[in-house]
Amino acid sequence: MPDMPSQEFRRLGHEVIDWIADYLRDPRAFPVTTQALPGELKARLPASPPIAGEPMDQILADFRDLIVPGATLWNHPRFHGYFSVSSSGPGILAEALIATLNLNGMVWKSSPAATELEQVVLDWLRQWLGLPESFFGMMYDTASLSTVHALLAARAKADPAMRTLGAAPGFVVYTSEQAHSSVEKGAMALGFGQQNVRKIGLDSQYRLRVDLLEQAIHADRMAGLRPCCVVATTGTTATTSIDPVAAIADVCRRETLWLHVDAAYGGFAAMVPEHRHLLDGIERADSIVTNPHKWLFTPQDCSILYLRHKDALRGALSLVPEYLRTAEDSQVVNYMDYTMALGRRFRALKLWFVMRYFGRERVAAIHREQLALAQTLTRWIEADPRFEVSAPVPLGLVCFRLRASNEHNQQLINRLNATGQVFFTHNVLDGKFVLRWAIGNIHTTEADLTTEWDLIRSTAAGLEQ
Amino acid sequence: MPDMPSQEFRRLGHEVIDWIADYLRDPRAFPVTTQALPGELKARLPASPPIAGEPMDQILADFRDLIVPGATLWNHPRFHGYFSVSSSGPGILAEALIATLNLNGMVWKSSPAATELEQVVLDWLRQWLGLPESFFGMMYDTASLSTVHALLAARAKADPAMRTLGAAPGFVVYTSEQAHSSVEKGAMALGFGQQNVRKIGLDSQYRLRVDLLEQAIHADRMAGLRPCCVVATTGTTATTSIDPVAAIADVCRRETLWLHVDAAYGGFAAMVPEHRHLLDGIERADSIVTNPHKWLFTPQDCSILYLRHKDALRGALSLVPEYLRTAEDSQVVNYMDYTMALGRRFRALKLWFVMRYFGRERVAAIHREQLALAQTLTRWIEADPRFEVSAPVPLGLVCFRLRASNEHNQQLINRLNATGQVFFTHNVLDGKFVLRWAIGNIHTTEADLTTEWDLIRSTAAGLEQ
Repeated sequence: MPDMPSQEFRRLGHEVIDWIADYLRDPRAFPVTTQALPGELKARLPASPPIAGEPMDQILADFRDLIVPGATLWNHPRFHGYFSVSSSGPGILAEALIATLNLNGMVWKSSPAATELEQVVLDWLRQWLGLPESFFGMMYDTASLSTVHALLAARAKADPAMRTLGAAPGFVVYTSEQAHSSVEKGAMALGFGQQNVRKIGLDSQYRLRVDLLEQAIHADRMAGLRPCCVVATTGTTATTSIDPVAAIADVCRRETLWLHVDAAYGGFAAMVPEHRHLLDGIERADSIVTNPHKWLFTPQDCSILYLRHKDALRGALSLVPEYLRTAEDSQVVNYMDYTMALGRRFRALKLWFVMRYFGRERVAAIHREQLALAQTLTRWIEADPRFEVSAPVPLGLVCFRLRASNEHNQQLINRLNATGQVFFTHNVLDGKFVLRWAIGNIHTTEADLTTEWDLIRSTAAGLEQ
Repeated sequence: MPDMPSQEFRRLGHEVIDWIADYLRDPRAFPVTTQALPGELKARLPASPPIAGEPMDQILADFRDLIVPGATLWNHPRFHGYFSVSSSGPGILAEALIATLNLNGMVWKSSPAATELEQVVLDWLRQWLGLPESFFGMMYDTASLSTVHALLAARAKADPAMRTLGAAPGFVVYTSEQAHSSVEKGAMALGFGQQNVRKIGLDSQYRLRVDLLEQAIHADRMAGLRPCCVVATTGTTATTSIDPVAAIADVCRRETLWLHVDAAYGGFAAMVPEHRHLLDGIERADSIVTNPHKWLFTPQDCSILYLRHKDALRGALSLVPEYLRTAEDSQVVNYMDYTMALGRRFRALKLWFVMRYFGRERVAAIHREQLALAQTLTRWIEADPRFEVSAPVPLGLVCFRLRASNEHNQQLINRLNATGQVFFTHNVLDGKFVLRWAIGNIHTTEADLTTEWDLIRSTAAGLEQ
C-alpha cells in the first residue's frame, strides 16, 4: 500500500472535517490578521526536505500551529481587504471530491462528466445572470486568465492571421483608469505593448467617460493604429464603480471593436432583481468574465468567461496533437480548444454543489443583505463628522477615511490590523489614502460590523492629532 | 446562518470522507472507463438552474449516481491513458483545508504563510531534484502556463522593450517534433506566431537532433530572424524520450538563447539516484517546468516553474497597483510579480503535506517500482510475437501495438476501453497507431498489469484477422 492506508485516511479525514466544522462554526476564535513578520514562518520550517516520511498527525498539528497563525484568513467574517470572499461548506466538500477523482477534462473523452457538467452549470449560471442563450461559457482559474483569453479572442477576430504570422504591432486596448491591472498585464503578455493600453479618464463617480473613449479611438485611428478591444468594468476593484456598458456597447458596435466586460466581482449583482439594472447592457458584450470564487461562495479558483463568438478564440488557440484526437470530436465540446492550459481540473463540480445547495433565491437573499450592510456602513460613516465616505457605494465596498492626513489614515489602518481582529487594505483615490471595507464573506453579520465600527472609532480617537 | 450549519457540515463531511476512504481502499470496484455517450449526462440534468436550495444529501447522491459513472476515473490503478497520475491521501486532505482557508497569496501581505510556505517547499523540491540554489521556484496551475511564463521570460531577456512597445516580429522558438503542444500554443498566444516555432527533427529514439537545431538557428539568423528560446523535453508526452539537454545547453550558451526544459512529467525521475543521469544537464537550463500533479502524488493542479533569472520575468510582468503596495515589498517575494494571474490559491499546502508524508525515500521507492513495472511490461510485450514495443521505454510509458494494421489496433483499443476495466489512449508514431500504457498511478500493482495483459491478449485474439 504505497498511499496512505484507507483506515488511516478515514481517521485523519474525520479529524480534518471536525477541524473545518469547528472553524466554520466559530471563525472569530481565530485572529483574522496574522502579526507574522517577514521570514518568521520560513525560520520555523526545516531548510532541508524530509528524507523519511513523517506521521500525518504531526503534519496536521503543524498546519494548526504554524500555518494558520501565520496566515491572514480570507474565509473570515472580519476580512475586509481587497474583495471579501467566501468558501462555503458545499464548495469545501466538493474540493475534497474533486481532488479524489482528480479528473482532467481537457477533452470530452478524457472524462465526459467533467465536460458535460461544466456545460450544464455554466448554462445555469448564464440563466441566473440573465444573459442570452448565445453565450458560451468556460472556466479558468482567475479573472486575469479569463481576460487574457478575451484579449486573445479580440485580437484573433481583428486579425486571424496573427496566429500564424505572430506579432502585428499597433493593436490598441481601451479601458478605464480604474480597470483591473490584469487588463494591462494581459496586454503586455500577449504583445499588445503597455503603450497601446489606453486608460480612459473617469467621471466624478469613477466611471469610464464615453466621450473620452471616443476621442481616444479617433486619435488612434488618425495615427494609423488599430483599435481592437474595449474592456469595461462593472464593479471596479477600487470603488466598485460601474462603467456605462450600454453606451460603451454603442461605441463598440459603431467602431467594430470587441467589448469585454470585467464583471469578475460585480456580475453577481445581477442575481438581485432590484440591482440588475446596474449591469444594463452587459448582454451586448462580446465576452464577460465573472468569478464564482469572488461572490458566489465557491472556493478559489473558479472564474468564468462567457463568449458570444467562441470561434475567434478557437481560431487563435486550437491545436490538436494526434494523441488528443477522438472519435467524438465533431459531436462534443473539447474545452482545450479554448484555453492556453491543456490540463483542466474538475472545477464544475464545486459550482454545481454551490448552485444547488444555495439555489437562486438564497443567493439573492444573501447578496441583498450584503449590499444593504454596505449601505448601513455608509450611513454610520457619514453620520460621524470625523470620517468621510470616499466614493459612491453601488455594491459591497465602502471606501472611507478619517478627515485627516494620509499619514493619520495609514496609522489608523496599521493599528486596526495590528489588533488581529479585523483586516483592511488601503487605496489612494484622488491623492487621498482610503481604507477599504469590503463586505462579501458569508459569515459577516451586522454585529461584526458594529464591533468593528466601535474599534475603528476608538482607534481613531487614540491617534495623535 | 447563511452557510451550511456547522453540524450539517460535520455530518456530511464524515460521509464524504467515508466515501473517499472506500474509494481509495478499492478503486477497482469502479469501472475506470465510462461508457457514457455524448450528451448522456447533460440529458439527465435539469436544463434550468435551481430556484430554491436542495438538500446536500441529494446532491451527494447525484454525485455518486450520475457524475462518477459518467466519468473516466483518472485516480485509478487501471488508468493508463495520457500520463497516469495520482492523487494521494495527504493531497486530498490538504485540498479540503486549502478550500476552507481560501487564502490568496498574491502578495506576501495578503497571507504571509502562503508565500513563505511556497518558498520553503519549492526550495525543498529543488533539493530533491538536485538543482542549484540559484533556481527560484513558483507555482502555476499547469505546465502549459509554466511554459508560457518561461517563453515570456525568454522574450523579455531578448528584448526588454517589448513590455512597453509590444509585438516585435521575428522571434523564433525551437523545440522538437515531439514537444508538448503547449509550446506551440504558448508561442501563438504570446504573439511569436506559429510560423516562428521550429519543430526540430528527431533521432531514432525520438530525441531532438542537435545538429538540426544548429542548422535551423543558423538559417534563421541568415534570414534576419531572431532566435530566442529552445525548449528541450525530458520525458516527451509521445514516448517519454529525453532530449540531450547538456548538448542543447552548449548550443544555447554559444548562441545566447534561453533554454527552457519541459520536465513536467520526467523531472521526478531525478528522485531515483540510478535514473538521475537521464536529466544530465538540466541544471544548466534557464528555466525548468515540473509537475507535482503528474508524478508526485499531488492532486491537480500543481505545476512548478524554476527560473535561474527571475528578473526577466518580473521585468515582463510586474505591475503594482496602489492597493497592492505594502510596507514589506522590499523584504519579501510577492509572487504576483511573476504571474499573469493575480489570484493564487494556496497550492503550497498540498505539496508540503505530500512531501512530508511520503518523504524522499518513499517517493524514490515508488518511482523505482513504477519504472521497473514499465520494464516488466516491455518484456512481456516483446515476448509475445503478435505484439511489438513501438519506442524505447526510458521512463514509465510503454507504447505498443499489435503487429497488424492501424485499423486492428484501433479496434483493439476500442474493445479494451469498452470493457470499462482499463483505459488506454492512442498515438501515431511514424505512421503507426500505437496504444499508450502509462504507469504512474500510486495504486497500480503488478497484479493489475497481469490482469490487463491477459485482457489485452485475449481481446487481440478475438479480433477478426
